[in-house]
Amino acid sequence: MATAGRSGVGTNQEDVRRHNLGTALGHVHRAGRISRAELTARMGLNRSTIAGLVAELESLGLADQAKPSGTRIGAGRPSVDVKARTGAYVLAVDLRVDGLTVARVGLGGVVRARATGPVPPDHDPYAIADSVVDLMRLVVRDVEPNAALVGVGLGVPGIIRGDDGLVRLAPNLGWHDVPFTKILSERLGPIAMPVLGNDADLGALAEHLRGAGVGVDDLVYLSGEVGVGAGVIVGGRKLEGAGGYAGEIGHMPFLPEGKLCHCGARGCWETEIGAPAIALAVGCPAEQVGALGEFLEGVHEATPDLRVVGRHLGRGLAGAVNLLNPRVIVLGGYLRSLFPLVREDVDAELQVHGLAAPREQVLVTLPGLGGDSVLHGAAELAFEPLLADPVGRLATACLDVDSALAG
Amino acid sequence: MATAGRSGVGTNQEDVRRHNLGTALGHVHRAGRISRAELTARMGLNRSTIAGLVAELESLGLADQAKPSGTRIGAGRPSVDVKARTGAYVLAVDLRVDGLTVARVGLGGVVRARATGPVPPDHDPYAIADSVVDLMRLVVRDVEPNAALVGVGLGVPGIIRGDDGLVRLAPNLGWHDVPFTKILSERLGPIAMPVLGNDADLGALAEHLRGAGVGVDDLVYLSGEVGVGAGVIVGGRKLEGAGGYAGEIGHMPFLPEGKLCHCGARGCWETEIGAPAIALAVGCPAEQVGALGEFLEGVHEATPDLRVVGRHLGRGLAGAVNLLNPRVIVLGGYLRSLFPLVREDVDAELQVHGLAAPREQVLVTLPGLGGDSVLHGAAELAFEPLLADPVGRLATACLDVDSALAG
Repeated sequence: MATAGRSGVGTNQEDVRRHNLGTALGHVHRAGRISRAELTARMGLNRSTIAGLVAELESLGLADQAKPSGTRIGAGRPSVDVKARTGAYVLAVDLRVDGLTVARVGLGGVVRARATGPVPPDHDPYAIADSVVDLMRLVVRDVEPNAALVGVGLGVPGIIRGDDGLVRLAPNLGWHDVPFTKILSERLGPIAMPVLGNDADLGALAEHLRGAGVGVDDLVYLSGEVGVGAGVIVGGRKLEGAGGYAGEIGHMPFLPEGKLCHCGARGCWETEIGAPAIALAVGCPAEQVGALGEFLEGVHEATPDLRVVGRHLGRGLAGAVNLLNPRVIVLGGYLRSLFPLVREDVDAELQVHGLAAPREQVLVTLPGLGGDSVLHGAAELAFEPLLADPVGRLATACLDVDSALAG
Repeated sequence: MATAGRSGVGTNQEDVRRHNLGTALGHVHRAGRISRAELTARMGLNRSTIAGLVAELESLGLADQAKPSGTRIGAGRPSVDVKARTGAYVLAVDLRVDGLTVARVGLGGVVRARATGPVPPDHDPYAIADSVVDLMRLVVRDVEPNAALVGVGLGVPGIIRGDDGLVRLAPNLGWHDVPFTKILSERLGPIAMPVLGNDADLGALAEHLRGAGVGVDDLVYLSGEVGVGAGVIVGGRKLEGAGGYAGEIGHMPFLPEGKLCHCGARGCWETEIGAPAIALAVGCPAEQVGALGEFLEGVHEATPDLRVVGRHLGRGLAGAVNLLNPRVIVLGGYLRSLFPLVREDVDAELQVHGLAAPREQVLVTLPGLGGDSVLHGAAELAFEPLLADPVGRLATACLDVDSALAG
């Protein structure tokens, strides 16, 4: 997405400079490495302004300038490349029903360290917050001196209220109105205010920025995480809905006399394609349902029961195709492992239930980021304040997280 | 929606002036009448610039200045009101399965004349285009001298390709890849290029601008027009999808072993809440199915069969609530007449199948524009070029449509 820079007349000069600095950093962050000429083209500002912005990013420890990596084409001076430097980083958390992943992610979206751990079976939010902090200690242990922590982002399989990060409902964690943001922020203190996002929304964000949906403005990311949620991007923007609750695709009515869903209704789509239904179809033991994806990796042929699940998946996807007309549908979570087994059945149902015009435009595919879509999305969420105002965010960033967390 | 005016430095002055003139006209058009002070506030430009823009709109015959209608509050000079003048108008067409409505609509969204007629039972596009032109002749007969026709917009119950206005599929007209835009434009010649829109999309647009969804950024408009389509507005913008085909909510999979749908699939939602299903439930004769809304006006109590339809309606709406989290759902077409009969059943199913967080935020309601949502939406579509560039559009507008159509 090209973003035109703002010119300075009629608005506060300092605001404009900060905005342009953030925009430039955003381009560098998303590309990892970008030529100054390309940056100039994307921002629609003149070369000397761009040179000034890049110099400022360098002095802030956020970017390096380097000789171009590619072959020189044409005459004229070769443009200098701008690389993201990991002088600033975030902590990203992927909280799943079956486990916890914490990563230290540098500018440019580079995972510098990661740690995983279990979650307590009772999903006690206080115990989970303690585990999150324990894993954070591990990943910041060898952080570069003076590197600045600029954000903490978490992906949670639930419905998050935007105002205060209250988890309104995370059915598979058994959470109703759990103030997890508050619980975790009490443990992190002044290090950084954690920001929570719905796991599917973050998966969509990451796949859009760095995965199977780069350059795609209409995308659906399906998270298979016991239940099934969707992160939807329409016209390049996240589908939020009135309260930020959009995307609960697992609760589309699907079978009128179907199984009872944990939400209280009967026959929601996820009663047929959720982890318990799939586990039943492949004979996965109850205690392994949380790690269904791994179990499915060991399955090499679809049983007739699994093929029924595949058809339910395809029929439901057709509904998403007809209503949302996406260019790409990314199947995340355990759906990553399921899809290769039942692709034919999915395609066949899509063929029958998808209307021709939108069906011809859609690609159903696996995540470009493998199993890390949500983790990367959590990192992107945490980077947002830095990209909005690099100077302002750095001014209040924590420079010694290791000691702060040890204390 | 407040729209900041553009300042002139760094861009082409003439472009900026045209843009600001269009933005000012847009505010006047949407409000019908607006004080100059309010216009100044909404555009974020200074008073003398606004005065200049309003004077130019006056000289173009697009606006009048008038003494304020309200009581004077506070000291200071009272602000002058700016009113839309009908020096420019559009022709709006609502093409339904059961009939055709054509209206002459002036700036401010005022219907100045309307005419209705039948559509041939075989839905031959050439014959329908002839009927459209016949009705146009009627509504332009007493048009003011020198009034300028600035656009022709049509609402069609089908899937329209954005590039060229090809009707890819209008199942209830029996149209597949019908170049109706081309057929009609051959009849209109240089008068104006017709622009087609999906009926539900236009209903959503009109309800958002002038109906039950004013100020609401997340809205679903359901058109009941034999089949059922949705126009969806998310975050204040139309949900287009990759190819402009989004909104085919009638083809959400609903009953796996349900009735065969005209789309070729089985059990689409509209097989249960479409006009034929409702007609069956209320004993509406086959030949009146096209005018089901009128028939339902004569029904005063829901039969058990109709209550089943109401429950299907509610269950499907819950799916839209869970996936899209809209603030308002507007029920248009024959659903306007159905809803009051089955409201309790709709509400009961919404209660069961809607997740609490999004359900608590949604209002299911009737159109603010009665049966004219699509017609008004077609008019808004036709006004768009004028609002984008008033001077440019007026320069090529047709000033004597009456003679041109007679020829």
